[in-house]
Amino acid sequence: MQGIITYENGSAFLEEAGPANTSVRYKLKEVLHTEQSPYQLIEVADSVDFGRMLILDGCVNVCERDEAVYHEMIAHLPVLIHPNPLRILVIGGGDGGTVRQLIRHRSIERIDVAEIDAAVIDASTRFFPDLACSFSDPRVNIYTEDGTEFVKRANAEAYSIVIVDSSDPTGPAEGLYSSEFYEHCQRILNPAGIVVAQAESPYVYPSILKLVHGLICDIFGSALPYRIAMPTYPSGQLYFMLGSKRRLVPPYFNDSRLEMFFCEQCENLRFLSADMLGGVFVIPVEVSDLLTR
Amino acid sequence: MQGIITYENGSAFLEEAGPANTSVRYKLKEVLHTEQSPYQLIEVADSVDFGRMLILDGCVNVCERDEAVYHEMIAHLPVLIHPNPLRILVIGGGDGGTVRQLIRHRSIERIDVAEIDAAVIDASTRFFPDLACSFSDPRVNIYTEDGTEFVKRANAEAYSIVIVDSSDPTGPAEGLYSSEFYEHCQRILNPAGIVVAQAESPYVYPSILKLVHGLICDIFGSALPYRIAMPTYPSGQLYFMLGSKRRLVPPYFNDSRLEMFFCEQCENLRFLSADMLGGVFVIPVEVSDLLTR
Repeated sequence: MQGIITYENGSAFLEEAGPANTSVRYKLKEVLHTEQSPYQLIEVADSVDFGRMLILDGCVNVCERDEAVYHEMIAHLPVLIHPNPLRILVIGGGDGGTVRQLIRHRSIERIDVAEIDAAVIDASTRFFPDLACSFSDPRVNIYTEDGTEFVKRANAEAYSIVIVDSSDPTGPAEGLYSSEFYEHCQRILNPAGIVVAQAESPYVYPSILKLVHGLICDIFGSALPYRIAMPTYPSGQLYFMLGSKRRLVPPYFNDSRLEMFFCEQCENLRFLSADMLGGVFVIPVEVSDLLTR
Repeated sequence: MQGIITYENGSAFLEEAGPANTSVRYKLKEVLHTEQSPYQLIEVADSVDFGRMLILDGCVNVCERDEAVYHEMIAHLPVLIHPNPLRILVIGGGDGGTVRQLIRHRSIERIDVAEIDAAVIDASTRFFPDLACSFSDPRVNIYTEDGTEFVKRANAEAYSIVIVDSSDPTGPAEGLYSSEFYEHCQRILNPAGIVVAQAESPYVYPSILKLVHGLICDIFGSALPYRIAMPTYPSGQLYFMLGSKRRLVPPYFNDSRLEMFFCEQCENLRFLSADMLGGVFVIPVEVSDLLTR
């Protein structure tokens, strides 16, 4: 079938960034899979420089070369901040990358994944076995269900952490960028509960970054932005937004928990270190201005 | 004349990243200037999303939207670390952006700029007056001369800081990526002297990042890498490498000097804050591994 991947001077894939005034082109070795699910166009390709890529509706969703940056930073921060993280809900995350990081934490008892598109899980199982293998951990339960519906029917205070590992705000993830969704997140989190959400880039979707910041501020009282540098996200950077039901004050991390994690469970971490957590919530002046005006 | 800027679906410019397996395309409003100097192709264009761009041999060199990230981070760090920065040498920097940041520091007595290509200075004066206006500061002296030659004839211990604000390692900046150049930097720096160099991205030119790290380590005993997130540099990130004749130990910054700078001289800083300096030398695990193996 006809996908979005185009062939120009050999095999190449062009990702149009948000407003499409900028785009990134990757040379590809081979297109491995093209499938129209009920929710989105799913493509898998091997690129020349960035390894294997999962491409959803024309946007790189997971890429072998830099997925660890995203997944380590979305998964470990809330777990290391929450005083006693036992039950985690991942909204989206059908590739398995976030769950792979979460299962490093032996203290976590249960991880529920609400992924709307079973075809993403299938594609990841077939083409990204290193990520999807984490789904076989006995603590993991997969629900192929819209995240906005899942949070409605979940019990109050059922989770320690909700991780919104969503795709861009066009397509199936659209409903995750709403007040109603965050109100349910607040309801289903326990008293020290934490939510973390993918919040886009100030260069590509400044309005979405501001929106997610505003939603979390309104419902949780404040929001802590942090950012990663990630080549395969348009503009090369991406923000996360963290909200907490318990008021957080610096230092946000507990030294003995960090020591345990980074000594015992950090094998093969590719990006995150204890040192990096020190300044993780510091953002550029311009972005801070954007979020407060 | 015929430039590198191509027209596809309207006006657009395509930057091929280092190994050319990835490229970034910008939609342009207008191409303002195209000139072949003795050293390089110089183009100036207004883009749709990133403001005005100076494009040298097909690579974005300065871009209004994100130039402050680069220039604030290459200029202020060494000035805030050196105990008494009086005389600064900028190698390259013909656009004026680095000098514009340096002149904020009233304690600096003299800034010499060794820019090989007078046509870059002319183009910046015409098209980036906000940057180039800094050249009229009475402390600034411009030498249109190859930086590798300039450092050979400079006096021993003449400078507090050398800033290697160079373009990519192909083209006129090639000689700046050599032992001989860094040996002269070491010779012309005073006993507490500091060198900072643009060192590319681990995703685009890992070998150049390693090379600059190795050159500075060999000659200065150690090298401190730091990184910025910058959309118009391929892969969205760029490293700097800092070497010092005086052994540096954390904390690298003096609180009272930071306070003076960020209280009195930081008007219109767009990126850097005192908080950001706390974790500035923390780099990802993978990059740390790349540099030490």
